[in-house]
Amino acid sequence: MNFRSDNESPAAPEILEALAHANHDSAHSYGADRYTAQLQTRFQELFECDLTVYPVATGTAANALCLGELAPPYGAVYCHSKAHIHVDECGAPEFYSGGAKLIGLNGEHGRIAAETVNKTLTATGYHGEHESVPAVLSLTQATEAGTLYAPAAVAELAAIAKKAGMAVHMDGARFANALATLGCSPADLSWRVGVDMLSFGATKNGGMMSEAVVDFRPTAERPPHESLRRRRMRGGHLLSKMRFLSAQLLAYVEDDLWLRLAAQANAGAARLAEGLAALPSVRLAHPVEANEVFAYLPEPLAEALAAGGVEFHRWPGSDGLVARLVVPHCVTEADIAWLLAQATAAA
Amino acid sequence: MNFRSDNESPAAPEILEALAHANHDSAHSYGADRYTAQLQTRFQELFECDLTVYPVATGTAANALCLGELAPPYGAVYCHSKAHIHVDECGAPEFYSGGAKLIGLNGEHGRIAAETVNKTLTATGYHGEHESVPAVLSLTQATEAGTLYAPAAVAELAAIAKKAGMAVHMDGARFANALATLGCSPADLSWRVGVDMLSFGATKNGGMMSEAVVDFRPTAERPPHESLRRRRMRGGHLLSKMRFLSAQLLAYVEDDLWLRLAAQANAGAARLAEGLAALPSVRLAHPVEANEVFAYLPEPLAEALAAGGVEFHRWPGSDGLVARLVVPHCVTEADIAWLLAQATAAA
Amino acid sequence: MNFRSDNESPAAPEILEALAHANHDSAHSYGADRYTAQLQTRFQELFECDLTVYPVATGTAANALCLGELAPPYGAVYCHSKAHIHVDECGAPEFYSGGAKLIGLNGEHGRIAAETVNKTLTATGYHGEHESVPAVLSLTQATEAGTLYAPAAVAELAAIAKKAGMAVHMDGARFANALATLGCSPADLSWRVGVDMLSFGATKNGGMMSEAVVDFRPTAERPPHESLRRRRMRGGHLLSKMRFLSAQLLAYVEDDLWLRLAAQANAGAARLAEGLAALPSVRLAHPVEANEVFAYLPEPLAEALAAGGVEFHRWPGSDGLVARLVVPHCVTEADIAWLLAQATAAA
Amino acid sequence: MNFRSDNESPAAPEILEALAHANHDSAHSYGADRYTAQLQTRFQELFECDLTVYPVATGTAANALCLGELAPPYGAVYCHSKAHIHVDECGAPEFYSGGAKLIGLNGEHGRIAAETVNKTLTATGYHGEHESVPAVLSLTQATEAGTLYAPAAVAELAAIAKKAGMAVHMDGARFANALATLGCSPADLSWRVGVDMLSFGATKNGGMMSEAVVDFRPTAERPPHESLRRRRMRGGHLLSKMRFLSAQLLAYVEDDLWLRLAAQANAGAARLAEGLAALPSVRLAHPVEANEVFAYLPEPLAEALAAGGVEFHRWPGSDGLVARLVVPHCVTEADIAWLLAQATAAA
Repeated sequence: MNFRSDNESPAAPEILEALAHANHDSAHSYGADRYTAQLQTRFQELFECDLTVYPVATGTAANALCLGELAPPYGAVYCHSKAHIHVDECGAPEFYSGGAKLIGLNGEHGRIAAETVNKTLTATGYHGEHESVPAVLSLTQATEAGTLYAPAAVAELAAIAKKAGMAVHMDGARFANALATLGCSPADLSWRVGVDMLSFGATKNGGMMSEAVVDFRPTAERPPHESLRRRRMRGGHLLSKMRFLSAQLLAYVEDDLWLRLAAQANAGAARLAEGLAALPSVRLAHPVEANEVFAYLPEPLAEALAAGGVEFHRWPGSDGLVARLVVPHCVTEADIAWLLAQATAAA
Repeated sequence: MNFRSDNESPAAPEILEALAHANHDSAHSYGADRYTAQLQTRFQELFECDLTVYPVATGTAANALCLGELAPPYGAVYCHSKAHIHVDECGAPEFYSGGAKLIGLNGEHGRIAAETVNKTLTATGYHGEHESVPAVLSLTQATEAGTLYAPAAVAELAAIAKKAGMAVHMDGARFANALATLGCSPADLSWRVGVDMLSFGATKNGGMMSEAVVDFRPTAERPPHESLRRRRMRGGHLLSKMRFLSAQLLAYVEDDLWLRLAAQANAGAARLAEGLAALPSVRLAHPVEANEVFAYLPEPLAEALAAGGVEFHRWPGSDGLVARLVVPHCVTEADIAWLLAQATAAA
Repeated sequence: MNFRSDNESPAAPEILEALAHANHDSAHSYGADRYTAQLQTRFQELFECDLTVYPVATGTAANALCLGELAPPYGAVYCHSKAHIHVDECGAPEFYSGGAKLIGLNGEHGRIAAETVNKTLTATGYHGEHESVPAVLSLTQATEAGTLYAPAAVAELAAIAKKAGMAVHMDGARFANALATLGCSPADLSWRVGVDMLSFGATKNGGMMSEAVVDFRPTAERPPHESLRRRRMRGGHLLSKMRFLSAQLLAYVEDDLWLRLAAQANAGAARLAEGLAALPSVRLAHPVEANEVFAYLPEPLAEALAAGGVEFHRWPGSDGLVARLVVPHCVTEADIAWLLAQATAAA
Repeated sequence: MNFRSDNESPAAPEILEALAHANHDSAHSYGADRYTAQLQTRFQELFECDLTVYPVATGTAANALCLGELAPPYGAVYCHSKAHIHVDECGAPEFYSGGAKLIGLNGEHGRIAAETVNKTLTATGYHGEHESVPAVLSLTQATEAGTLYAPAAVAELAAIAKKAGMAVHMDGARFANALATLGCSPADLSWRVGVDMLSFGATKNGGMMSEAVVDFRPTAERPPHESLRRRRMRGGHLLSKMRFLSAQLLAYVEDDLWLRLAAQANAGAARLAEGLAALPSVRLAHPVEANEVFAYLPEPLAEALAAGGVEFHRWPGSDGLVARLVVPHCVTEADIAWLLAQATAAA
């Protein structure tokens, strides 16, 4: 059973149905279709504001486009030292920004502390044009450690960033999982707390290959020439048959599908964490707040699980290797029970 | 009826079925799945050589990745002055190559003549490091004017390029249409006639969103560190659920689906061209060799067609605006008959 | 005798004296010295406006910094098809702009015609984000063919550009030569006729290694974070001992040195052109308006000159190779007389 | 008296004389002059090997060109967390490399420990194309903390790097100061201990504006098309009157001028350090091994020095602000005596 990554789960049936539905007849290309138009309206309702949404096929594309738009080549992007944009994208943000500098900030459990940003900013700005300009603060939600920023935490960080003239980006690869746990509205976790651009993830949570850049910036504050649109084009991320991305995203948010799937994954993770933590030899590495469980497992237990067919990643942790178990949207109670039974037997 | 672009056609049913089929169970992410492995083997059989295939979601991504791989930042890419890479990708090749220079060569009916490449090369190389280095010759197949390069023509051009130390790229957005007309094997139209890297198009010809970079270069001649793989990653073009791209491409070439669809489109275009050319007031702008018809239409005829529900683009031609009618893979004989009836009535 | 390029002439004695003068004592680095401060004031007087001047060591640096500042990565730069920025800088503008596209416009005698810009713009803008955005019009003054744009011509071109939302750059590698012929003020040939940024050349006209970017844009219209200053830094063009660039530029404009040197070179070129044109076998390729003479020479004459010790370049012309003879700032009447005597004897 | 930076010192008289000497007559441009040819030979003798030297006007240019040549866009550059290339060049290495990632390694007294490189490499390479490829190890000599790497230390670090497939760059902004202290030959501190490319500094040590890239790589192992030469051109770093850079560098190494100047600066720093350390309230922050003294000064002492006319920078140290006093090549014994007298009086 695959707990390696939510990237490895199948797409939700609703997503496939949406593709089939969008496949009737011809449709104008490059986003001039009715699905993409509808998506625009739908996301404005969902986020309760006048945003622009740009569907793309990958989360790295969404992140890199956001950062390339927000950071000038001579800018610096502050992010967690373990942020996906910093360690898992082979330099995509550097590429799309024309060579901006990513500055990894340490922080417990995957979260950047307000005090760390303050301290970094305080040590900055004394050396004129020799320094990169702090340009963007990027937060991952849920974090790479499976934890969350509450709306107030985002607001506090965003306020610091804004005061320093920085824009705020949110890598929302697991944005739905964050919402499902926090129980707040999409707006309350994004623009209302200072997020300028959001990488809106769907693929990990039941999508097939559909993510989006959501641009909350007031139109008047955006660069001219529809900058982002052109950056997407020259990045090779404007799909000719765009309707098939938009249709996925429409289905994803229809009838709260995304929140239901995320809640299911999160609940599975919570049960799994609880069950594992109850084993005397196991210790959780991070609080489990979304759909990821990071746990220090004794080596024999890890091996027994692997031998029993549980697929998971081993991750470098502060205190030896930790097992990362990611719970997919399609998990069942039986799956978790089976895994816990295996673990209990082996422990 | 939509003759605007083959980009606007639906996906073939086989493609949708393949997606559904690939959606069972989990699969390793980022291309470590069995569909992607199978695609590798399948393309090696198809092209009769030891190639590497990299699925991506768009043709611009395929082109830009190829050119970024083949052209150093201080290189020049020779292409037709109307090439998609030069005028329709908002600078994607410049972006992916780190600032290479595209040099547009004029040529009748969308084709670059061997003599033009020779002449350009002859005027080059006198000014040392002040000049960009001729690095890549890029050919579009079928061309932007709907015409073809026969294998011998590709071979002649490639030989000139190779002698000058240049690599050869083929933008095969309509590679299937070219094969369908020319009746040669994929190998005979690519590596056997000197093509180093091919942008393999599927989306326009019944795919949903799946293209590929096909790298024919011997492994020993490729840059180290799996350069192309990393360029794809940092371009944001490595799909986490890669199986859904690979599955499309597998279905696309299964049982010659791609060639059948292309033949159907080409046949429709041929009938359409014949019918239009028979009208006294109409003149073809280019030979019709694939699935695109470029025709000078008298303005009243153009307007009558549009009013009758025929969607097409008006294109800047050498002698006024020309109508571009692109025939999709799903065209029927009745569709063409209907269009010709409209035209005949209006003429 | 060297008529190959004004780049090959020595520096004027005043420039060397200025270096020696600036070498007393220590001075703050990176432009925080009194020479650089004085340069700022001096250029504001000279150009009669509130500009910012950034000294750099090469003309290519000045051009590339201007274009990188004015053109977004998805922008297009219109220039003459023979412009130095297009054919002699190995892609520097593409590099500094993050991959903008240079569009070479043909034009007689090195000049771009207003009608050509209009025609190019008219054919642009129909294809949305697929096209690069026209962002900059770059004019070379004197042109690469040794001709000039009169102030009214610059104004006409700039007005067209501005109307289209484009900025105007002037490559003034031989700006002094242009002023010397046209007899107008620096302001009349730059910001007053719509130039936004000027590459101010000194090296060819008696400087040692000192050029400058002159930014006429109102401060409020410049990008934030002193964008240009940071681009210069990351381009490696901020000299630590900046005083030695600034001191050169101060000496260069002191007591009209630059205009006197340019006038001398121009006068030499005029005499040379007149003398050559009087020979029955010689024909000028371009009007001689600055310090460059382009002439079709019969091959035996060209060879006789070379054999007699006259160094010059042979240039590809519209009608065979032309001799380019560049007259340096330090030319004497005797030099020209000697050259003409050689030519007359050989003709 | 200026102890702010060796960048703020005047040029040595020999440098000015060399400029005057090189100013007679014309010389071919862009490095085709006899000074540049002579420099090539002279550096080959000096370094006892078959190298190529490329003069440039700034140290940032030299560094960025080296890193752009050695690191692919998808590469990582390991350097000290306080390295000039990482914190003082506004992203120049990112720019020239097309977006490589700089990874700052902590290390005492400005030095990177072999163990740290080993540890970093050990944690690398598990994540395929998602990670940037370790491509270059960059060492600063003397370090940003005014300390040195002995030849054996460079050799040990270089061996680790080479084993991991990385190239080795040395930022030798104060290479002469390192040689003067270590007493070894230029070869022994560069290619013989594994350095592939050296940024050879002269400006800080009596030069006016002349640095150089020294490329020790065997010709056969360099990229084709004289890659570095073209990168220099498109960076805007090919001076037209190149002789004036080359002449500076020739004078700089003539009769060991560079080593004499560096020895003088180092001796001054040693005396200064000794004198300061003898004061009960002062503590050195780093060993003084070249021409820089970093010292924790009590605030009243720092203020008294400043009030007495001693110019120096206050630097963020591990334990409060430290004073950085840089001793220039032109220092006299009296200068140091005066400074120490001031300090003693104030302490």
